[in-house]
Amino acid sequence: MKEKAVILLSGGIDSATAAAIAISRGFDPCAMTFSYGQKHGVELLRARALAGFFGIREHLVIEIPAHIFRSALTTGSLEVPKNRPVDDVDEIPDTYVPARNILFLSYALALAESIGARRIFIGATAVDYSGYPDCRPEFFHAFKEMADRGTRAGVSGNGIIIETPLISMTKAEIIRTGHRLGVDYSLTHSCYDPGPDGSACGSCDSCRIRRKGFRDAGIPDPTRYCGEDGNQ
Amino acid sequence: MKEKAVILLSGGIDSATAAAIAISRGFDPCAMTFSYGQKHGVELLRARALAGFFGIREHLVIEIPAHIFRSALTTGSLEVPKNRPVDDVDEIPDTYVPARNILFLSYALALAESIGARRIFIGATAVDYSGYPDCRPEFFHAFKEMADRGTRAGVSGNGIIIETPLISMTKAEIIRTGHRLGVDYSLTHSCYDPGPDGSACGSCDSCRIRRKGFRDAGIPDPTRYCGEDGNQ
Repeated sequence: MKEKAVILLSGGIDSATAAAIAISRGFDPCAMTFSYGQKHGVELLRARALAGFFGIREHLVIEIPAHIFRSALTTGSLEVPKNRPVDDVDEIPDTYVPARNILFLSYALALAESIGARRIFIGATAVDYSGYPDCRPEFFHAFKEMADRGTRAGVSGNGIIIETPLISMTKAEIIRTGHRLGVDYSLTHSCYDPGPDGSACGSCDSCRIRRKGFRDAGIPDPTRYCGEDGNQ
Repeated sequence: MKEKAVILLSGGIDSATAAAIAISRGFDPCAMTFSYGQKHGVELLRARALAGFFGIREHLVIEIPAHIFRSALTTGSLEVPKNRPVDDVDEIPDTYVPARNILFLSYALALAESIGARRIFIGATAVDYSGYPDCRPEFFHAFKEMADRGTRAGVSGNGIIIETPLISMTKAEIIRTGHRLGVDYSLTHSCYDPGPDGSACGSCDSCRIRRKGFRDAGIPDPTRYCGEDGNQ
C-alpha cells in the first residue's frame, strides 16, 4: 500500500509541480486547497482541474473567512501592485497574506496526523518569488520544530516531514521539472488580478514571474494574457 | 486608545480567565472562537455568553471542518474516555485533537497581524491538564519562533507576543484568579461529553479537573452535573 502524503494544491505552477513530484515519488496524494476570499478565486477551479488531471481521489477544499486577512489579495480597498521590480525581495509587497502558509500548513498538519500521513508537500520557492517570509527555508525549519513540539506525532518521535522540493529552484527549473513529469500547465493559474473571464493581467508579480519562467525555460507559456493571444 | 489583543475564547474556565486577565490589563479584546465539530458544541453558546459578559464587541466564530480531525472530541466512532487518571500526563488521551492549538493560534496570528494587534491571549495551562503537547511552554516558545520567521510583523522585529498567563497555574489558582476578577463561571462549560440538555457528565478528564479545581479553590462549582444538583 502506498504511503499517504498531504499536498497543498493552489492551482498554480508550483503546487502542480510539487504534486507531480510527490506522485512520481510514489506517494498516495491527499490534496488540500484553500478558499480564503482571494481575488484570483479562479485558481480554485484550476486546483480542481489539476486534482482530476493527477487522478487525486481525495481533495479537500477548505474555507477560510476572507475578513480575517488584510492583504491586497483579499481586501477590496487594497490594489494588487503592478509592474513592481520582482527581484526586490527586501520589501514585502501588499500581496502578502498574514500567516497564510502558517494556516495552510497547520490544516495540512491536522489532516496528516489524523489520516496517518507522514509528509506534507508544499510548492514554495524562495528564488523567483515575491519575498514572502513564509516561503523561506528558515520558516519551514521553524514550522517543523514547532510541529514536533505541538503534536502527538512530533513528541512521539514520528514528526511530520515538510517537503519543499522546489525551495531552491528558479521558476524556469520548476517549469522544466514539471514539463518532464508531464504536467499540463495549461490547467494552472498564476495571476493575482485576473479579468472577469479569468484572463491573466500580465503585470502583477505572479504573472511577471510566470512569464519570465516560461521564457527562461524555453517552453511556450499556455497562458492567455489580457489583450494578447496565447503563446508568448 | 487601548491596544488591541486577540483572545482565544473557547467557553471554558481557562479562556474565560485569560480574557478577564487581558481586559484587567487594559487591552481592547477581539475574541476568536472555533466551531470544529466538537461534541461539546454547547461551549460555543457559552463563548457567546462570555463575550457578552465581558462586553467584547468583536467576536469571530470560525468554522473548521470536523472531518479533518480524528479525535474522540470530534469523531463519532471514538468514545470520550471516562474516569481516566488525569494526573497521567505521560499518555496523551484520545481527546487530543491533532494540531488544534496550532490551528487556533495560526488564525489568531493572521487576525492579529491584519488588525495591528501585538498580542494573542490563550488560556492554556500545563499543570492540571490532559497532557496535550500543544499546551506546554516549549510548544508556545516554538510557535513564537516560527511566527517570528513566517510573518511580516515577525521579520520586521515586531513579532506577535503569545500571552499564556495561566501556563503555570493549578486549576484552583486559575479559578481563584478569575473569581477575584469577577468572572461568572456559571457561564462557562468544560464537559467533553455533555448530555442533550448540556449537563456535564462529571467523569471525563475535563469535568474531573474542573470539579477538583473548584473543590481545591474552596469556591462552589456552579456546574450542573448529570444526575446531581448544582453545587458540589
